[in-house]
Amino acid sequence: MFQPKAAMLPIFRLRPKTKPQAIRHGFPWVYADEVVLDRRTKGIEPGSFAVLQDDAQRPMGVVTVNPVSKIVARMMDPDPEAVIDRAWLAGRISRALALRERLYDAPFYRLVHAEADGLPGLVIDRFGDLAVIQPNAAWAERMSGDIAAALVDVCGLGTVILNGAGRARSLEGLSERMEALIGDAPAAPIEVPMNGAIYLADVMGGQKTGLFYDQRPNHAFAQRLAAGARVLDVFTHVGGFGLAALAAGAMHATCVDGSAPALALAEGGAAAMGAADRLTTRREDAFAAMEGLASEGASFELVICDPPAFAPAKPALEAGLRAYERVARLAAPLVAPGGYLCLCSCSHAADLAAFRNASARGIGRGGRRMQLIHTGFAGPDHPMLPQLAESGYLKALFFRLDG
Amino acid sequence: MFQPKAAMLPIFRLRPKTKPQAIRHGFPWVYADEVVLDRRTKGIEPGSFAVLQDDAQRPMGVVTVNPVSKIVARMMDPDPEAVIDRAWLAGRISRALALRERLYDAPFYRLVHAEADGLPGLVIDRFGDLAVIQPNAAWAERMSGDIAAALVDVCGLGTVILNGAGRARSLEGLSERMEALIGDAPAAPIEVPMNGAIYLADVMGGQKTGLFYDQRPNHAFAQRLAAGARVLDVFTHVGGFGLAALAAGAMHATCVDGSAPALALAEGGAAAMGAADRLTTRREDAFAAMEGLASEGASFELVICDPPAFAPAKPALEAGLRAYERVARLAAPLVAPGGYLCLCSCSHAADLAAFRNASARGIGRGGRRMQLIHTGFAGPDHPMLPQLAESGYLKALFFRLDG
Repeated sequence: MFQPKAAMLPIFRLRPKTKPQAIRHGFPWVYADEVVLDRRTKGIEPGSFAVLQDDAQRPMGVVTVNPVSKIVARMMDPDPEAVIDRAWLAGRISRALALRERLYDAPFYRLVHAEADGLPGLVIDRFGDLAVIQPNAAWAERMSGDIAAALVDVCGLGTVILNGAGRARSLEGLSERMEALIGDAPAAPIEVPMNGAIYLADVMGGQKTGLFYDQRPNHAFAQRLAAGARVLDVFTHVGGFGLAALAAGAMHATCVDGSAPALALAEGGAAAMGAADRLTTRREDAFAAMEGLASEGASFELVICDPPAFAPAKPALEAGLRAYERVARLAAPLVAPGGYLCLCSCSHAADLAAFRNASARGIGRGGRRMQLIHTGFAGPDHPMLPQLAESGYLKALFFRLDG
Repeated sequence: MFQPKAAMLPIFRLRPKTKPQAIRHGFPWVYADEVVLDRRTKGIEPGSFAVLQDDAQRPMGVVTVNPVSKIVARMMDPDPEAVIDRAWLAGRISRALALRERLYDAPFYRLVHAEADGLPGLVIDRFGDLAVIQPNAAWAERMSGDIAAALVDVCGLGTVILNGAGRARSLEGLSERMEALIGDAPAAPIEVPMNGAIYLADVMGGQKTGLFYDQRPNHAFAQRLAAGARVLDVFTHVGGFGLAALAAGAMHATCVDGSAPALALAEGGAAAMGAADRLTTRREDAFAAMEGLASEGASFELVICDPPAFAPAKPALEAGLRAYERVARLAAPLVAPGGYLCLCSCSHAADLAAFRNASARGIGRGGRRMQLIHTGFAGPDHPMLPQLAESGYLKALFFRLDG
């Protein structure tokens, strides 16, 4: 068990002129150029804890330290006496759980969303009796056993899976792994009810076939436009928007993705809903599929494009915005007169205005005029710290096109 | 009847180097410095129509002209042959109606939202069998009889009220008036069902006691936080958030406003819902009320502040942001541990990031830490042109405060 005592923690000191005010007001990160890094502090083991001090040596809280990362320290607790142990973890998880229990009828949600839930770099998704934890910071990797135990303490879960994959981990110097920490890895995909639809999540398959809860409110908005509609869901993944539309009475959904395993899960979800006869899947490059459908003269009352992040970080911004514009330009002609087009971005680097401009330009170049009827973000089980909210990554724009 | 023929319309020409591309892609406004204004064009009667030409004399569409306004021309129809008459109006209203009928079960909504619904400067709110039109552009004032007739043609309404009040009209050189164009002005406030609550709208009382549909999705989000809660609704107007919370099972709502007629309508709504025993109204300055409640040690699981526009235009931005910060600072201490705070802005000039920063600063100065769990805008019956979306005026931020 990993239970440091506050008294034993090393000291991590801010340089003179570094903004202690922002950190006191809740900004959770300390960058490498903001602290005094000497031989001693550089030797601190990644993922261990320290007491952060301002340049006048006043303690500011307990941080987790990772000299390997550009973010060398992340605030764990503004109480410098805090002991980060299983009981502390259970307290944070309880607090996160209270929000989700207020918001959702069934235990399927993102239970912990990292910094905003007071657990830096730690993501936990809940699927009923099972949770998947993603330790994207070194401290969480070190304490994954305690995190799993605390989850059982608070939520009474039977199974806890560790999903150690993704870009964030490599920035922290963590390698890939995937294993059951508590209970057994499920033998089959899990049925996940959401917005009246049923999704299948292959939690051992990694991000490729897992489930993203963040689009839930945008799926729900699309459902208001779906009754009786022919729907095209491009970049459907495991059927996100398409199955939601079918649950809301869409006449038919065509779901396009490049991944055969993802489409198989979409088909399984539709079958579980009794809607398999209203679903067509196309395993195809999304751009090629849209061009093909246009040449067939296809037309849909509702088209959704939810591509992967084209602009995950700043260097990719310009090329990313061109890709979003291209998606919009190819999708617009496929929308029936007076129909609806939903365009999504999960790119941190493309802010709302930039993404909206690229989308509007693409729709215009696709020969259509438009109204913007709704702008949606990630659901409330993905809270943010306002100090980090500029990067609110998920945006969904709903347009109505000319008649 | 006012039925110009395209052939008779005067010509309005863009100056060289003015961006015809933006207008071709849907930007709806022409500013005074963008057109050739000679003696003839300056003599055009406010609210009449003209054909807009680019600097190469290519026709770009029919515009309405108002030499009195900073926006000298607004695009009516990109078809330069369009005849703006009752039938044309009926076409635009039908298109707007189709969106609302897709979105809402009952005929209570903003039916026409000006530029984004292709009817520049014209706002129409529907209350069942009655509509209130706000002609905030000179053309709409001139054609108000045709607009009312077209509304009856399309929606079969019994009553059409003209509400000629508000700042936008004075910018167009229009005076105040209020009258029934079709049918009789209602003798009593109208019952408006929304989100399971019942509101009373005094449509002849002007903005002070009318109803705003724009907060509907934000009321709905607040309802997800309201069950069993003690609720404080500051700047409640006719009971907006407070009655929504009561409809969702709030234990009690305290509604604060400076207007006695508005509070009387809130009380009437609560009575119609059978919830009068769970409502307390306080007629008081909002800031004084929050200070008073703090000194009483009052505490609420859900606090909402939906003030009037503190920063309606750029010169008021700094003072407006200070006012938003002050609202947040006074409201934060009234939120129970782990409770929720909803802060709204309907200021064009304060964009989302500026308003979010002011709110977070105020909450911090109020001694609380926070998560941002939801950002909402005006509902989809208030569509926008993406080209004008920067000014998306209504923002609602939902915070969860520390436990």
